[in-house]
Amino acid sequence: MIAMTRGVPAPESFPIDEIIPAFEKAMREDGRKALGYVASPGYMPLIELIAEREGVSPDHILIGNSSLEFIQFITMTEAEPGERVFAESPSYDRVNLLFRRRGLNAVGIPLEIDGVDMNCFEDELKKGAPKFFYTVDDFQNPMGVTVSLEKRKRIVELAGKYNFMILEDVPYRELRYSGEDLPTMYSMDPEHVVKMSSFSKTLAPGMRLGYLNGPADFIARVKTWAGNSYIGPVSPTQALLYQFIKMGYYEPNLVKLKDLYRPRMEKAIEILEKELPGAVFPRPEGGFFIGVTLPEGNDMAELIPAAKEAGVLITDGRGFYLNPDDGKRFLRVPFCGLTPEELEAAFALLLPLIKK
Amino acid sequence: MIAMTRGVPAPESFPIDEIIPAFEKAMREDGRKALGYVASPGYMPLIELIAEREGVSPDHILIGNSSLEFIQFITMTEAEPGERVFAESPSYDRVNLLFRRRGLNAVGIPLEIDGVDMNCFEDELKKGAPKFFYTVDDFQNPMGVTVSLEKRKRIVELAGKYNFMILEDVPYRELRYSGEDLPTMYSMDPEHVVKMSSFSKTLAPGMRLGYLNGPADFIARVKTWAGNSYIGPVSPTQALLYQFIKMGYYEPNLVKLKDLYRPRMEKAIEILEKELPGAVFPRPEGGFFIGVTLPEGNDMAELIPAAKEAGVLITDGRGFYLNPDDGKRFLRVPFCGLTPEELEAAFALLLPLIKK
Repeated sequence: MIAMTRGVPAPESFPIDEIIPAFEKAMREDGRKALGYVASPGYMPLIELIAEREGVSPDHILIGNSSLEFIQFITMTEAEPGERVFAESPSYDRVNLLFRRRGLNAVGIPLEIDGVDMNCFEDELKKGAPKFFYTVDDFQNPMGVTVSLEKRKRIVELAGKYNFMILEDVPYRELRYSGEDLPTMYSMDPEHVVKMSSFSKTLAPGMRLGYLNGPADFIARVKTWAGNSYIGPVSPTQALLYQFIKMGYYEPNLVKLKDLYRPRMEKAIEILEKELPGAVFPRPEGGFFIGVTLPEGNDMAELIPAAKEAGVLITDGRGFYLNPDDGKRFLRVPFCGLTPEELEAAFALLLPLIKK
Repeated sequence: MIAMTRGVPAPESFPIDEIIPAFEKAMREDGRKALGYVASPGYMPLIELIAEREGVSPDHILIGNSSLEFIQFITMTEAEPGERVFAESPSYDRVNLLFRRRGLNAVGIPLEIDGVDMNCFEDELKKGAPKFFYTVDDFQNPMGVTVSLEKRKRIVELAGKYNFMILEDVPYRELRYSGEDLPTMYSMDPEHVVKMSSFSKTLAPGMRLGYLNGPADFIARVKTWAGNSYIGPVSPTQALLYQFIKMGYYEPNLVKLKDLYRPRMEKAIEILEKELPGAVFPRPEGGFFIGVTLPEGNDMAELIPAAKEAGVLITDGRGFYLNPDDGKRFLRVPFCGLTPEELEAAFALLLPLIKK
């Protein structure tokens, strides 16, 4: 069975030989602090290091057990049930679920090749500003698209005009395999944007180490909620990450990851272009995913069991849409967790089942 | 400044020399799994090990980032705003806060030297059964009292009769410095009791490693909520703990902790008996705390700033009571984080400020 399901990093990419000495150094140098209660916002040496990398003061940074959980906290501190929030459509399925769990009125804005459809976005704004807009603007999950500079500017402008927050989730940003970085929305208006990221894709997801960079008052609210929920995030892993970066392991690991993932992305694009000319999909320049809209006549309800029967697990595309029916032809191809050979093998099993 | 505030383990107790090789072994043997996504209920080798120690099948066990956060999850899955829950009075202040945050109707049952006042408990039950009763029945935080066998039996009997759950929180249970263990309520009726514990007091609180042992349907509900909140708990620390136990470090560490804390507890009791004969306090046989009700005429509102002025930080006793005024003479003495000499020094500064 080949699992073309979750967006998981390649297990062979985990830098175990660097993680072990980083942990030992963390424990030898500061074990008594790192093993004790480390209350929210987190382990101060790491907070300061992230703040320095982000170019902000430490009171703008909050560390937690995954950035997903931060989104959950934010649904509690920043919005009441019934209030409007905006998301891209499709969007990260787990975030859609947290919006539903909180009873938010989540509005999905259709995603185009260069970001959300701005006409729809502005029409929805006129109906009522959201509490926040959730966007993965670099190599989006599940589509793989990157928001254009023009749209970034316009969205930020609208956030100022209509006074809503942008949750800019950038876990894939550092994994660019071609092309040039665009400025973050955060860099354009740090008063209306909370940038969030994690080390799940750039180091190891089991660390569950996410962070926020946002306005101090916003951070203070989420910090209090987080602290009341669990006192503080798990700290030995924070001390490990601090040493991992200080020892100079982080940047070379990024290079290694990009060299590992680039050919996987290229292989996936190559197969799709050759074998599924009738499908619609972006050509990502980084990240983990290519979102494929299959030709008319395909239906996830049939494809998932047939694929499983053939030996491939695929994710139900409907989960990425606030209106599930919109995703019945949507196939997310997560290319990072599979080698080029495994991608070929998976598609060899899957393609005969797809109506072209 | 001497901090006689939080219930923190002694930092000098952290077994850093054993934690480092346990982590290395965890990474060498199973790093690819332990660093990847490890979804709720947690890292399976540790789940199985805890299940074995608890004498249950693995589907009864759930691991999370602190048992405090489990209580937060349980307030979401097991009760709706306005519903009744019972707690001891005084009780763990952070749990009181989570009950308030969820809008629960939390009823505090006065705590006596051998557990809650059973007349009050039964009177309240007649007014309406709670969704659950939260109890720390061994060496309670903040009182230090242990619930008698007779009261354990009666409470469990009532849980069956009135059909409510008991949340039996036992983080201090393994830290008994004298006397004999009493059976857990969980052992008396595993259908009506969820036993919860953590490794914060027996290994290191920064691990934030808590677990539940309860009925499979209860565990399944909390597992789903937890998984939707953060996918899974931080996993490298779970693998570390698994190896720490397997390598035989856990039991000797408990012995070491008990030898470290026993004289601290004895010193605290000795000072209180000698210097505060007019105060009311239990003589605990384990744990971290002695809850002292100061003589009439004392008031935390005055004592806290005066103590700080004199160089001692003390916890506001009012936070431990659902009705804060009930705690205005309540001083929690956490003896574990201070050496016998520090305890003497702290009391030397504090005693002159207390009205005897």
